[in-house]
Amino acid sequence: MKNMKRPLIFITNDDSFRSKGIKLLIDIMRKFGDVVVVAPTNEQSGKSHAITVNDPLRYHKIEEMEGYKAYVCNGTPVDCVKIAFNIIFKEIKPDLVVSGINHGSNASINTIYSGTMAAVFEGCAENISSIGFSVDCHSLDADFTHCITSIEKITKDVLENGLDENVCLNVNFPASEMKGLKVCHQAKAYWNEDFLERKDPMGHSYYWLTGVYNCQDENPGADYNVLKEGYGAITPMQVDFTAYQVIDKYKKRFE
Amino acid sequence: MKNMKRPLIFITNDDSFRSKGIKLLIDIMRKFGDVVVVAPTNEQSGKSHAITVNDPLRYHKIEEMEGYKAYVCNGTPVDCVKIAFNIIFKEIKPDLVVSGINHGSNASINTIYSGTMAAVFEGCAENISSIGFSVDCHSLDADFTHCITSIEKITKDVLENGLDENVCLNVNFPASEMKGLKVCHQAKAYWNEDFLERKDPMGHSYYWLTGVYNCQDENPGADYNVLKEGYGAITPMQVDFTAYQVIDKYKKRFE
Repeated sequence: MKNMKRPLIFITNDDSFRSKGIKLLIDIMRKFGDVVVVAPTNEQSGKSHAITVNDPLRYHKIEEMEGYKAYVCNGTPVDCVKIAFNIIFKEIKPDLVVSGINHGSNASINTIYSGTMAAVFEGCAENISSIGFSVDCHSLDADFTHCITSIEKITKDVLENGLDENVCLNVNFPASEMKGLKVCHQAKAYWNEDFLERKDPMGHSYYWLTGVYNCQDENPGADYNVLKEGYGAITPMQVDFTAYQVIDKYKKRFE
Repeated sequence: MKNMKRPLIFITNDDSFRSKGIKLLIDIMRKFGDVVVVAPTNEQSGKSHAITVNDPLRYHKIEEMEGYKAYVCNGTPVDCVKIAFNIIFKEIKPDLVVSGINHGSNASINTIYSGTMAAVFEGCAENISSIGFSVDCHSLDADFTHCITSIEKITKDVLENGLDENVCLNVNFPASEMKGLKVCHQAKAYWNEDFLERKDPMGHSYYWLTGVYNCQDENPGADYNVLKEGYGAITPMQVDFTAYQVIDKYKKRFE
């Protein structure tokens, strides 16, 4: 018989339902509560907060067990959250949204490109405690075992105590063993793009987007630096782009 | 002979090169300087900060006149900026990045879904003064004439005085006549999604994402409210998701 007091946990990611990271996250979360997954059918890396407005969306249930249902959706991570909240859950709201475990760091400027974190922001906009988990290793076969205890600790705490209004967590773990957890701020950084040129059979150029990450933030409290020191980096986040520090000055200038 | 002192202005958008809004923006910006456009070949609404990492990118020059070159690119607005800065400009940096004029408001929570503003954030990350212009009307044939004077005023000011480091502008105009300009903050708001269900010829369901906007911010200084009062809303923005107000509290809790 279903225990009505078990929390309801929603899981998504951007690496697709096939990824190793989401399989482990499902296993961990099933210890804490009933789990519903809506994950992208195919990889959606770099899709940021994109939504699908000019094409139709579809979803299908692909797994079901006691206390666990999983669906795949042809859209972006944010589409997956919107499908879950509006079609699958309807009036029910989950107690927790978790996204990941992402194969690759979402610290620093990566946050804005990340489908993993976009799903977290979307959960946060629905007033649900929301956490993104990522590991600083892009390998499809990345090792996540050193993160399990910390994921469990953070999940337990957030389920018990919630998060502040409009605040969510961006949690990034180093690729291998971990010294502990630190709460940090988003590092100031940018990508130096490097486009690789190729020629198609007609001799026309096309380009692959690649890049090199550049951290400009020497503050030891920046998430990127914390991660490089071997700690798990917990960055509390919110979606407010306003540059409040210049509002008064710009009022004099533009009004 | 080219006047070497004319500023170099980069233009993109998310409605595609075919849109009425970008044509007008090109006309306005050509009064101020030399113009290079890299705009999406097809509409990229709702693409947010998405980048194309799993497909190749292509771009083609489609227009050229004295002091003006225009290219189209098969990618997202952010891809267009990256192509421009890394392949077309190379060592040269433009003096200004402008994006739009978007057919539809990008005030409030729309910022995070917006390809228009993503391009602006990307310009800002390159340390270039960057401005997004949008009009609160989705019609392909939207009227922009009431905005021209304000666009010129803001552009002149920013070309002369720059913007603060890491700060860019999100400028939203009402659909028709305007009482003036106000500097504001991003309104707290969310979308109530409404998925429209349809059946394909096989009888399977698919869904169109639509929604109703809900403003939760009663502050008259919120961009959405300023816009509804009939003013042009200038929101200074930056890309830092950190929720600084909870860092000390969360250090005690999670470290």
